[in-house]
Amino acid sequence: MSKQKRLRVAVIGTGRIGRLHAEHLAFRIPDAQLVALADVNIQSAREVAERLNVPADRVYEDYRKILNSADIDAVVICSSTDTHSTIIEEAAKAGKQIFCEKPIDNELAKIDRALAAVKKAGVKLQIGFNRRFDPNFRHVYETVQKGGVGDVHILRITSRDPEPPPVDYVSSGMFLDMTIHDFDMARYLSGSEVKRVFAVAGALVDPRFADVGDVDTAVITLEFENGAFGTIDNSRKAVYGYDQRVEVFGTKGVISAENNTPHRAVFGSVDGFSHPLPLNFFMDRYVESYIEELRQFVDCVLRDTEPPVTGHDGRVPVLIAMAASRSLKEGRAVALSEVAEPVLV
Amino acid sequence: MSKQKRLRVAVIGTGRIGRLHAEHLAFRIPDAQLVALADVNIQSAREVAERLNVPADRVYEDYRKILNSADIDAVVICSSTDTHSTIIEEAAKAGKQIFCEKPIDNELAKIDRALAAVKKAGVKLQIGFNRRFDPNFRHVYETVQKGGVGDVHILRITSRDPEPPPVDYVSSGMFLDMTIHDFDMARYLSGSEVKRVFAVAGALVDPRFADVGDVDTAVITLEFENGAFGTIDNSRKAVYGYDQRVEVFGTKGVISAENNTPHRAVFGSVDGFSHPLPLNFFMDRYVESYIEELRQFVDCVLRDTEPPVTGHDGRVPVLIAMAASRSLKEGRAVALSEVAEPVLV
Amino acid sequence: MSKQKRLRVAVIGTGRIGRLHAEHLAFRIPDAQLVALADVNIQSAREVAERLNVPADRVYEDYRKILNSADIDAVVICSSTDTHSTIIEEAAKAGKQIFCEKPIDNELAKIDRALAAVKKAGVKLQIGFNRRFDPNFRHVYETVQKGGVGDVHILRITSRDPEPPPVDYVSSGMFLDMTIHDFDMARYLSGSEVKRVFAVAGALVDPRFADVGDVDTAVITLEFENGAFGTIDNSRKAVYGYDQRVEVFGTKGVISAENNTPHRAVFGSVDGFSHPLPLNFFMDRYVESYIEELRQFVDCVLRDTEPPVTGHDGRVPVLIAMAASRSLKEGRAVALSEVAEPVLV
Amino acid sequence: MSKQKRLRVAVIGTGRIGRLHAEHLAFRIPDAQLVALADVNIQSAREVAERLNVPADRVYEDYRKILNSADIDAVVICSSTDTHSTIIEEAAKAGKQIFCEKPIDNELAKIDRALAAVKKAGVKLQIGFNRRFDPNFRHVYETVQKGGVGDVHILRITSRDPEPPPVDYVSSGMFLDMTIHDFDMARYLSGSEVKRVFAVAGALVDPRFADVGDVDTAVITLEFENGAFGTIDNSRKAVYGYDQRVEVFGTKGVISAENNTPHRAVFGSVDGFSHPLPLNFFMDRYVESYIEELRQFVDCVLRDTEPPVTGHDGRVPVLIAMAASRSLKEGRAVALSEVAEPVLV
Repeated sequence: MSKQKRLRVAVIGTGRIGRLHAEHLAFRIPDAQLVALADVNIQSAREVAERLNVPADRVYEDYRKILNSADIDAVVICSSTDTHSTIIEEAAKAGKQIFCEKPIDNELAKIDRALAAVKKAGVKLQIGFNRRFDPNFRHVYETVQKGGVGDVHILRITSRDPEPPPVDYVSSGMFLDMTIHDFDMARYLSGSEVKRVFAVAGALVDPRFADVGDVDTAVITLEFENGAFGTIDNSRKAVYGYDQRVEVFGTKGVISAENNTPHRAVFGSVDGFSHPLPLNFFMDRYVESYIEELRQFVDCVLRDTEPPVTGHDGRVPVLIAMAASRSLKEGRAVALSEVAEPVLV
Repeated sequence: MSKQKRLRVAVIGTGRIGRLHAEHLAFRIPDAQLVALADVNIQSAREVAERLNVPADRVYEDYRKILNSADIDAVVICSSTDTHSTIIEEAAKAGKQIFCEKPIDNELAKIDRALAAVKKAGVKLQIGFNRRFDPNFRHVYETVQKGGVGDVHILRITSRDPEPPPVDYVSSGMFLDMTIHDFDMARYLSGSEVKRVFAVAGALVDPRFADVGDVDTAVITLEFENGAFGTIDNSRKAVYGYDQRVEVFGTKGVISAENNTPHRAVFGSVDGFSHPLPLNFFMDRYVESYIEELRQFVDCVLRDTEPPVTGHDGRVPVLIAMAASRSLKEGRAVALSEVAEPVLV
Repeated sequence: MSKQKRLRVAVIGTGRIGRLHAEHLAFRIPDAQLVALADVNIQSAREVAERLNVPADRVYEDYRKILNSADIDAVVICSSTDTHSTIIEEAAKAGKQIFCEKPIDNELAKIDRALAAVKKAGVKLQIGFNRRFDPNFRHVYETVQKGGVGDVHILRITSRDPEPPPVDYVSSGMFLDMTIHDFDMARYLSGSEVKRVFAVAGALVDPRFADVGDVDTAVITLEFENGAFGTIDNSRKAVYGYDQRVEVFGTKGVISAENNTPHRAVFGSVDGFSHPLPLNFFMDRYVESYIEELRQFVDCVLRDTEPPVTGHDGRVPVLIAMAASRSLKEGRAVALSEVAEPVLV
Repeated sequence: MSKQKRLRVAVIGTGRIGRLHAEHLAFRIPDAQLVALADVNIQSAREVAERLNVPADRVYEDYRKILNSADIDAVVICSSTDTHSTIIEEAAKAGKQIFCEKPIDNELAKIDRALAAVKKAGVKLQIGFNRRFDPNFRHVYETVQKGGVGDVHILRITSRDPEPPPVDYVSSGMFLDMTIHDFDMARYLSGSEVKRVFAVAGALVDPRFADVGDVDTAVITLEFENGAFGTIDNSRKAVYGYDQRVEVFGTKGVISAENNTPHRAVFGSVDGFSHPLPLNFFMDRYVESYIEELRQFVDCVLRDTEPPVTGHDGRVPVLIAMAASRSLKEGRAVALSEVAEPVLV
């Protein structure tokens, strides 16, 4: 492939996840070229630029400079969640192809407005549900899609963080912040939409979560349109590390994915046989998925195909999280239709 | 130990499970002596007697002959469920020590009458929740009891049968018939009582279960008195065999139990690495637990200690099953207190 | 099956392994009847007899009483190794069916005389290589026999004891005492005869083994008649327990067997995921194999078929051990033909 | 770190492994800068240069142009084995820091001359035994070094290729070509030098290997200076994929490393539970090790420390392979001292 065909991409927001995407665009995705960076903290953007060989004159404080640059094909939005929907709207109007970190927003109205702008502009929008691109979960998905487990009856997701976020971290609540990935996985792996949700939860890890109206431990039941059932269990703190497992059970069999570990060495002594802990940091655990999701985004733009995670895929998990919150409050199963009429985008 | 100290035991009901217990008493439990058998199908009892060297004149059609025999210390009740509570009452009055298969009964009133009779007579009653004696689950239990996982936060039980029962099998419904073991496990492993239950379920394996008002697939959420949460998933048909796994997650760690397999050989070829299926038949899977529960019953009688599974332990899972049934009907979480005031026996 | 068809068996030698066989004959093998016991330590025999309901008048100090009893069909020889060949000869002359613990003897001449006596008398002789009946190794064997791994190229055996024998234990040396089981496994699993042996070894666990001319650690290479190669590694002391693993690698795949554990529970904490140690005591690890070998012995007598482990199978591993000893001394590969011309019995 | 401190590296030889190293230097090792390329096939070098942004005027047919460039700090030698020792000598004289693919050469005299040149020039030389940097083996090594297994008694290495090399591939024989990695691992993991070697081998996979005097299947016994024993088994063709496992057993325990797999998903059906095959291609299996070895090379030059794999480490495995070849021929254990007096460089 000659160089002029590479997709020219800019990253907006150079925090932890923005740096990661920028590095992947610079070094790991041959069909992309990292051409510009923006961050309200210009110093952060400059540091990233120097390390990744982005010219100093393509580093901006104001992301609109990027939207106004004719030589930029696509933007990767990694700014704070409350800015996502606005930047999506503006980028769409500017005709840029868009990759946006999850969630699109925590308010349905803002999500719907952003999706409408994307639709109108005819640009592509991919949402950063990176776990869909993890080799483990991808293999589970493919096995289910090929009919390996037959009709899906039961879906189990265990998703536990190694540590809760700092107390002063501005969270939208565990369901919107953490479980939202599991809600996405539930739809992705089951191949069906969620119909009804039931949640129980509490602040068992740290009572301060209760003080701010949040929870840190939950068990959530899902009923799917196709009749299957799902169960998700969450904890904000698993002392043994980042625990991310799924299982899909059906009429022909079962497929499950275990955790990744830093190595495959096993130690035996008088105390038992000791296997390594899971990879503890989400950026280590999911590193391949972050590369692959961007690679597929670049690919879908260059080939003009459907993005693998659409705006609709970004919207529905927010709905499920809202239903889970209401279920928790009311002690009953809540249908998605009670929260909002699903809109097909 | 001299022979006169062996506990003299009779088995009432020589169907599948009665035969198993009789064989264990005859050959596997040195402190017990199998001295008599009874079954309404006298021919069945005679066959068992011949094989196990029980004298022909100690084989009865009417179990009351056993209750009236002064030289019999204890009875193992393996007759049909609807006869359990009556035989318990009569055996208690006759001063026999009692081991009774689960469930005691499906009606609370009959259970409570039987437990009252046992209390009044001052005899021992052990209920046949054999899984508590399985080496895997026992190790999980002991780890939790020793504080290995710290405070329990999440309990997960997967319990799937290899095949649904025959269509004409008279079942009390999946919750009372199959899930009742999981309800017992939930109390046993969490070390806490269940406070509230939420169930979703359907007839996904075979629609004929729906025709008789039953289900074959379920996901059940439990809230425990100590604040922990539990999730049970059930299926009447796992094509890969009898699937019985548990996991207890807490502040200090996690303990889980995998399935038992007939061997530990692994085969690798171009098609992947193939591990053996779980032991498929519950009598193979739990054979050690059946021996151990009877051994402990014999032991608690000989040493005059508390039975490891009390009448109360037999009663509560029936309550949980009732709450699960009501939850399923009403689409909401149901508190155990709504079903019946728990009685401490 | 009516009672008169049960095989009437006596056990000669009621030490550890004799008691085990006696108990299995009494309780676990329906087609056998334990009718008599003998031991030079008559008190030991009496204790076993009382526990297993053998009449007091069928307990002997002199095993010849058993050989002279017309109502005894078969003997299980569990006396000390140096008495095996003589008792086999006498039992054969007395027309008894014979099960004999391994090894037959440590001297080829005595083995050959015993096998000749058996042949002449036309009785059956089965040698107690119990590991052939272990479900793990049996599954490996069957997979190889069915052609699952194709042509065998490499065989790997790891065989490590949890503890060395006491210093004053009269051993014939590690190869004849411990590795002999692995030599049997090598023939059994590869489906081929051993052609040449090379051994390296030392006293790494305890230098006192060197003082008595023995070793406690070894690596042994085998060349098979069919061209395959094998490697055995031995240690007298594995701190993590009894380690018994095999692997057969061939043109179509690989089959291996892992250790058995007392349970299948896994504990995860900040220190890693801990799996249980192997079953530590050979009588626990191989309990099923001990029952199964006797069951098949009883069966081969009752049905008049070939014993599953013949006298020839008892003789060859002694030859291999002799070749290994010579190889160790001479630092070169030693052919079995150098040690003795194999005799087909 | 400011840019002027990055190590300026050229790659000589742009075949499969040269391209890999070049890509890692360009994108994955921040402290290095890929500045030039050379290959006798200039077209190959040009293609790599274009992809990795190396200026066209820094691509050479003759590697001496690189040695003569004052602005180049270090060379990575990936040309054919027969050119290694000459290029090492010339690069040393030119004062370049040297990373050289294994083996240095197949002739001791040429190895020794190259090592002498390096010593005289006072430059660094690191040999490409990449497996030392694999996270699995590295963890095994560290556990042994920390005394986790106590004194090492037994070392087991299984090393099997997925496919034999093409018939017309110019090999130095399996021991020098493939087993040499295992000989390096043996020294690395045991922490001891090899004293004596015994090998059995044959052409079981493909008789054509015998036609050219080579083998494709082997079992090799090692005796170490510290008294430990080792066993290596090799096959040129494992149908289930690239099989690379090690185990180190000692007085305090055992540490082993299993194969890496492309994912951690397990599928259960009526046919058993199927785990994924190992990563099949050595560049996938060892990708992290290739990056890490170069990272450490760059680091040892920048910090002026000892290379993690020295010229001596490159020389000894060649000696072991020579001893193995002689053992195979002569049917006896061969001491390394018989092959050549080890020279400490």
